[in-house]
Amino acid sequence: MNGKVTIYDIAKKLNITAATVSRALNGNQNISEKTRKMVLEAAHEMNYKQNKLALALKSGRSNYIGVIVPRINTNFFGSVIRGLEEELNAKGFNIIITQSHNDEAMEAKNIETLIDSHVDAIFISSSSKSSKALQKVLDAKIPLIFFDRRKIMDNVSSVTIDDFTGGYMATKHLIDTGCRKIAHIVSGPIELEIFRERHRGYQQALEDHHIEYRKEYVLKTNSSIEEGKRAVDILFNLPEKPDAIFSASDFVALGAIQELQARNIKVPEEVSVIGFANEPFTDFLELSITTVDQFPLEMGRTAARVYLNQETNPENKNIQKKVVLEPKLILRKSTR
Amino acid sequence: MNGKVTIYDIAKKLNITAATVSRALNGNQNISEKTRKMVLEAAHEMNYKQNKLALALKSGRSNYIGVIVPRINTNFFGSVIRGLEEELNAKGFNIIITQSHNDEAMEAKNIETLIDSHVDAIFISSSSKSSKALQKVLDAKIPLIFFDRRKIMDNVSSVTIDDFTGGYMATKHLIDTGCRKIAHIVSGPIELEIFRERHRGYQQALEDHHIEYRKEYVLKTNSSIEEGKRAVDILFNLPEKPDAIFSASDFVALGAIQELQARNIKVPEEVSVIGFANEPFTDFLELSITTVDQFPLEMGRTAARVYLNQETNPENKNIQKKVVLEPKLILRKSTR
Repeated sequence: MNGKVTIYDIAKKLNITAATVSRALNGNQNISEKTRKMVLEAAHEMNYKQNKLALALKSGRSNYIGVIVPRINTNFFGSVIRGLEEELNAKGFNIIITQSHNDEAMEAKNIETLIDSHVDAIFISSSSKSSKALQKVLDAKIPLIFFDRRKIMDNVSSVTIDDFTGGYMATKHLIDTGCRKIAHIVSGPIELEIFRERHRGYQQALEDHHIEYRKEYVLKTNSSIEEGKRAVDILFNLPEKPDAIFSASDFVALGAIQELQARNIKVPEEVSVIGFANEPFTDFLELSITTVDQFPLEMGRTAARVYLNQETNPENKNIQKKVVLEPKLILRKSTR
Repeated sequence: MNGKVTIYDIAKKLNITAATVSRALNGNQNISEKTRKMVLEAAHEMNYKQNKLALALKSGRSNYIGVIVPRINTNFFGSVIRGLEEELNAKGFNIIITQSHNDEAMEAKNIETLIDSHVDAIFISSSSKSSKALQKVLDAKIPLIFFDRRKIMDNVSSVTIDDFTGGYMATKHLIDTGCRKIAHIVSGPIELEIFRERHRGYQQALEDHHIEYRKEYVLKTNSSIEEGKRAVDILFNLPEKPDAIFSASDFVALGAIQELQARNIKVPEEVSVIGFANEPFTDFLELSITTVDQFPLEMGRTAARVYLNQETNPENKNIQKKVVLEPKLILRKSTR
């Protein structure tokens, strides 16, 4: 046979699919012993050379890294991934990305896809309420590293920011500048630690300043401009209207400001607004938005280094690292 | 009933086609809620078990689709990928994304990674000047589909927008509103068809209106806010300053506007500015930016359908499809 023999040639000869050949060669357990033997013999006869991945598998490494994020098209996740790439590409790894759209079933599928792609490690900002699918990663002996959104699991390192402090400093700034009727928009599933902690920071700041926590001032939404408009619609139909909004999302903060302006309510004179994440648009708007920076590039780089440190020093392998970055309040025009 | 229940058994019982049963079970959105419910109930009653792996093995499919984009964190590429996901997830495919950062070597690595991951197809917005790495995809008998940025290759379908028309309509709008000294910022490698075509549209519109093409009015930059500022710095140190800027990137247009405003040059009274891509921020700025919409969601959906149509109809397999979407000029405040 001329040219390089591929799994497609083997498949053709044996009248089975290329996927079956691939699975047999890669030791997938869903292949019968008979088929495996048949494939291995044909591969040998045809002088098949396993590709780089197959060879790497023998050595235990593919040099592929899987990343799972809720969504790719925000500056925050884009920057975390950039940080991961900076550190990991330099070490010869290539990054494959999947998005979960905040959907637990989708995230489970992403995990399955990445395990099947033989990645060396999975970095995840998890949207799951349970850790069932995540456990599969550990069962497959693939290192798992959380960033931004983590679950409490044994033997899994994480790099997050201190979301409690982020929520606290945002709320305290509103109080310090004279606001007393401060609404909070959760902007994501409260089951996730990041949103729970930002809310807890908000609550604690109110308590420390002897301001009553009012249930009707706390709204749960998704993270979108439209939801910010809707939130203002609800909050400004209350008998006692808020004088400030702390949103756990910049997109919701932007929508809130747009809706306030549409109602001729002056920002920040009548209502102050703070977002979260320091998305670039918060800075280049005419009415720039006060927000909390999460240092995503640093988060990605740090998460990569945690993994590399585990892998290159076998004695570190089972040391669980928990890195917590400090957030920073960025003062702009949407607060007094 | 004896033996394993198949979709054919369900189809027979309900007197509908097996394809409809399959679509209903796989969550295809083109199935009515009524039919979906009927199928799911029958499947439950008949104790039907879907065996995804078996199906995949029979068809020789991994059900993974690879996507390569220059960068993930723009609304444009995020929306194309959303369009791909909408169509492909419904058919049981899962999407793996890689980014090339406009780097040919990185793109070649991405291609290698995706081939090794046994994806069923690769959708790419290519940053490559040569088609050497892309040829490897075809050699591996993996379908390749271009979107946005294509290369001229045999047997590869593509979904693009008419970038020539986009460039032409933007420039014509500037001429129609009285501008005569129109600069053009290429905002990406001129070797890529999209930038070459937008520039050609600019050139043609000038020619059709008997306006001289001036070399010093055409700048090559990358797509970033900083580069837009730098471009204004160069253009406004020319002896004869432009009265309009057509940028092939919204980010460069934004940077240009910021720098013009910093120099107290009034937009659009003294200088009109047009961007390209209709990124969301162009709409929610105080001085909203006139731009060219590329319909990215539609682009993603169409590219997915081109692939699915090839795969499900073997006779279409070698028909090269070239879909060109029409761009649309979105008028906002940055032009007169």
